[in-house]
Amino acid sequence: MATATITQAETQIRGLVDNYIKAVRARDLDGIVRDYAPDTVFFDAIPPLKLSGAAAYRKNWQDCFAMMDGPVGFDVTQLEVHASEDVAYAHMINHLSGTVKPEGKMKDNRMDFWFRATIGFRKIGSAWKVTHEHASVPFNPENNTAATDLKP
Amino acid sequence: MATATITQAETQIRGLVDNYIKAVRARDLDGIVRDYAPDTVFFDAIPPLKLSGAAAYRKNWQDCFAMMDGPVGFDVTQLEVHASEDVAYAHMINHLSGTVKPEGKMKDNRMDFWFRATIGFRKIGSAWKVTHEHASVPFNPENNTAATDLKP
Repeated sequence: MATATITQAETQIRGLVDNYIKAVRARDLDGIVRDYAPDTVFFDAIPPLKLSGAAAYRKNWQDCFAMMDGPVGFDVTQLEVHASEDVAYAHMINHLSGTVKPEGKMKDNRMDFWFRATIGFRKIGSAWKVTHEHASVPFNPENNTAATDLKP
Repeated sequence: MATATITQAETQIRGLVDNYIKAVRARDLDGIVRDYAPDTVFFDAIPPLKLSGAAAYRKNWQDCFAMMDGPVGFDVTQLEVHASEDVAYAHMINHLSGTVKPEGKMKDNRMDFWFRATIGFRKIGSAWKVTHEHASVPFNPENNTAATDLKP
């Protein structure tokens, strides 16, 4: 496949990630799901094991923002993109931070953890869409706690 | 791209997953990493956030098997494959089970949990290789515990 096509695909996917970062920081739910396929399948950092649909994905972010007070911090590091003509995936290490309202269900009323994200894309028509996402923190098997204190 | 090429790619990737399942059940470390790229990047279910290299991946399975007594149960469900000519990804829900030795660092000395896995592939030369893997269980944010009791 032509190198130019791959370079263009990578550039487009990095553009999608950039848009996503800005949308999360702005609590912009429509912006977050702008490039998600309607039937996207996602493994979120929180239960359940699996969910389907851009609407469910949007709702998870809505619930997250609802329990946060003030600014939402969101940073993406170590982004790597693997793209072909019409299938691609990317992985990255992300940081989410902010203050959680007293009634929010979050330990210590503080959101501040690094997590891993893998995103699967397909080119549908002329546009790249997110068809899969997997976000997680590792867990410590000896005591079943989430390792939310790790840093990249 | 020709449909036949995509169908063939999907078949080959499902073959890699089948081989992997059999290798885990057989505690066959060389079989497990047979199709992993030397520089594979993986987000394991346990810390750290990120690791690189098939050798590190092999070692994690070696450590896992070393603390297990008797048979290793491993099942893969809900496998979906998205393939292009030379980039692909797959996601699935897996079950790992077995008895953990008394000295093994695992809560309740029992390994029995469902987890999510996303695998990224690239065709390198004429063979598909795993260039990325992400395995995880979700966590409960209200008390920071790993949700190892979920079922698909």
